[in-house]
Amino acid sequence: MTTQEILKDAKNAKSYLATLGAVEKNKALCAMADALETEYDSILAENALDLDAARGTVSDVMLDRLMLDQARIKAMADGIREVAALPDPVGRILTQRTTADGLMLKKVSVPIGVIAIIYESRPNVTSDAAALCIKSGNVCILRGGKEAYRSSHAIVNAMKNGLTKAGFRADIIQILDDTTRTGAAELMKASGYVDLLIPRGGAGLIRSCVENATVPCIETGTGICTVYVDQYADQAKALGIIENAKTQRPSVCNAEETLLVSRDIAKEFLPKLKKVLVDDRIAAGRQPVELRLCQEALAIIPGTPATEKDFDTEFLDYILAVKVVSCVKEAAEHIAQHSTHHSEAIITENKENADYFTAHVDSAAVYVNASTRFTDGGKFGLGCEMGISTQRLHARGPMGLEELTSYKYVITGNGQVRK
Amino acid sequence: MTTQEILKDAKNAKSYLATLGAVEKNKALCAMADALETEYDSILAENALDLDAARGTVSDVMLDRLMLDQARIKAMADGIREVAALPDPVGRILTQRTTADGLMLKKVSVPIGVIAIIYESRPNVTSDAAALCIKSGNVCILRGGKEAYRSSHAIVNAMKNGLTKAGFRADIIQILDDTTRTGAAELMKASGYVDLLIPRGGAGLIRSCVENATVPCIETGTGICTVYVDQYADQAKALGIIENAKTQRPSVCNAEETLLVSRDIAKEFLPKLKKVLVDDRIAAGRQPVELRLCQEALAIIPGTPATEKDFDTEFLDYILAVKVVSCVKEAAEHIAQHSTHHSEAIITENKENADYFTAHVDSAAVYVNASTRFTDGGKFGLGCEMGISTQRLHARGPMGLEELTSYKYVITGNGQVRK
Repeated sequence: MTTQEILKDAKNAKSYLATLGAVEKNKALCAMADALETEYDSILAENALDLDAARGTVSDVMLDRLMLDQARIKAMADGIREVAALPDPVGRILTQRTTADGLMLKKVSVPIGVIAIIYESRPNVTSDAAALCIKSGNVCILRGGKEAYRSSHAIVNAMKNGLTKAGFRADIIQILDDTTRTGAAELMKASGYVDLLIPRGGAGLIRSCVENATVPCIETGTGICTVYVDQYADQAKALGIIENAKTQRPSVCNAEETLLVSRDIAKEFLPKLKKVLVDDRIAAGRQPVELRLCQEALAIIPGTPATEKDFDTEFLDYILAVKVVSCVKEAAEHIAQHSTHHSEAIITENKENADYFTAHVDSAAVYVNASTRFTDGGKFGLGCEMGISTQRLHARGPMGLEELTSYKYVITGNGQVRK
Repeated sequence: MTTQEILKDAKNAKSYLATLGAVEKNKALCAMADALETEYDSILAENALDLDAARGTVSDVMLDRLMLDQARIKAMADGIREVAALPDPVGRILTQRTTADGLMLKKVSVPIGVIAIIYESRPNVTSDAAALCIKSGNVCILRGGKEAYRSSHAIVNAMKNGLTKAGFRADIIQILDDTTRTGAAELMKASGYVDLLIPRGGAGLIRSCVENATVPCIETGTGICTVYVDQYADQAKALGIIENAKTQRPSVCNAEETLLVSRDIAKEFLPKLKKVLVDDRIAAGRQPVELRLCQEALAIIPGTPATEKDFDTEFLDYILAVKVVSCVKEAAEHIAQHSTHHSEAIITENKENADYFTAHVDSAAVYVNASTRFTDGGKFGLGCEMGISTQRLHARGPMGLEELTSYKYVITGNGQVRK
């Protein structure tokens, strides 16, 4: 199908899906999950073709991301069932009041409409995104990466078959056949068809959406996350948090990229840091962290001299940019200049400095004495996650089901007119 | 100042304003209000120059919109004081929970940052928008119409003088010197500087913003509002509501533009409609409403034959497009096709049809037995209004102070790391 046909089909399916009740939507989700498990052999066959084509042209990490097996398909199906088990985000009464004119005014949550998701190579995003959209009453248009073309289409076909068998319309899930830039560009410009565009991927994709989209778009993901170790830090806590934030999973957006250390404790703290992130890891046979140090830190411990660019880089790797600052105020200023407003942390036992940091640091998630790695829909208790918004409008931080809804006002009167 | 300098100044003022407390912001607002009253003579002098330049080139209605006098300036100052008296929308704890990891997670409302407002000729929007922004902790960049250039600048100067005298930074209010299209275009493309763009004006301005803006933008205003008179309507109520929705103030976005009438009652109802909107008004010496009728309505009462375009037009005038439909379902379908999703109403005493209408009509405000004219921040109990959003993201319907805030998560732990 052409992208234009897909857009029209999606728009057509909107009011059908928006008026399905919670019980019906959950039945639809379970049918999709069952179908993934029933049709796993055809999904694996298509996935094998994707893997064959990708082998030799992409890294092993990428190949692993692309690879499906029966256990991974089972996990995808279980993921859909978990979404089904969450509370319905549609139809919540957000506020209710009787106005001065005697009107009963209700603010009720409703689906956004058609959500387009542009993502990269992981096939599980396909089922994940579709489940979150359907649960929140939104028709989805998926546009996956070209490496996963056959896998994503097989997953969507299975889910559509499940829907049809259970008596639901299958057009509530759409997938773009066009995986070129043209397909993505058409989605970005589909005013009147796409109510929300969510790009999930690297900085280039997100920038392209922000610059080119005429449809509403939510920026997700890019995280230059900072940990500031205050002079009043419990240094053992600080080391534990930094090790976790930097090394537990360096490739994700909530991993730490920058460390700021108070000058008052730098001479004492930086050697401990080097021990934890470099020496101990080498001794344990684990990958050490490359420390990119400002001049002042470099006078205390050995490492790579940092360039200014290092403080504006999302490494997504075992690399940490380190800078000595005078105080919490300078830390907040550095963050205002360099961070992507995703997640930042202060490590301190001093309430005043903690309060200053949480008031002045303007990021989606601001931590006191905890790892930035907690910025996650599951960890925040949202039950699931469509992505992490780094913008300020509509949704900020992890986006769960409620963040995939809008609202409308329903006003009931008995003939009132405005005077 | 160049637009680029203004953008930099605005960004610089963000963190200063965001961390002012409620008491300080209210003091700043009162100082602005007082200064408007103190400096009214210089404002009136500049307004006289605007009026001189405009006379002969714009309509009398436009001239009246542009005109200021002492009473209107007093009303602007009082408007600012009313905003000061509203609750602070910043720092509200939206949710609070302890997570499974023992983290205290708070979702707290924060300012959006820098809000740019592009508006047309009414000078009072200048003080109104500035007050709403400051109360919600947002730096504003105002860009008024060129006809009101001198008036708007005089109003801004007075407010800035008030701020300075009271010990506040004056750069929290910015006004563009450039009233050409270039100035507006620079605002639309000011990624990293403008956090939200709100166009307030005609359909052309809004479309231009939606098509060209790379910064987040909220569409406001355009309203092709519909009233559907169901076969179960109380027809006296229906007539009162339609007269109000169409004629009380036809030039505003929440005025009715389209009337749908159930076929079951069309023969009985349409003659009454003509009496109320045409005959009685002529008899009373008031402007009658031009009825643009579908073929079926035209067979019942005289009027202008409607073209298809009439059902897609925001007349903002004493004109009403009228169409006979079979039932509530066809009414909802017509609305889905033609409305701008602003405000729609059903007039019925039948609960089932009312429920169908409120469930299936996807507009910011959906009424049962009340006039669409109630869609207004003040009438909804929001205390004020920055505009009426017709889009689905972030804010829908009247935007008050809360809709001018974003949120962030503040998470407090005692050393937690992610496993």
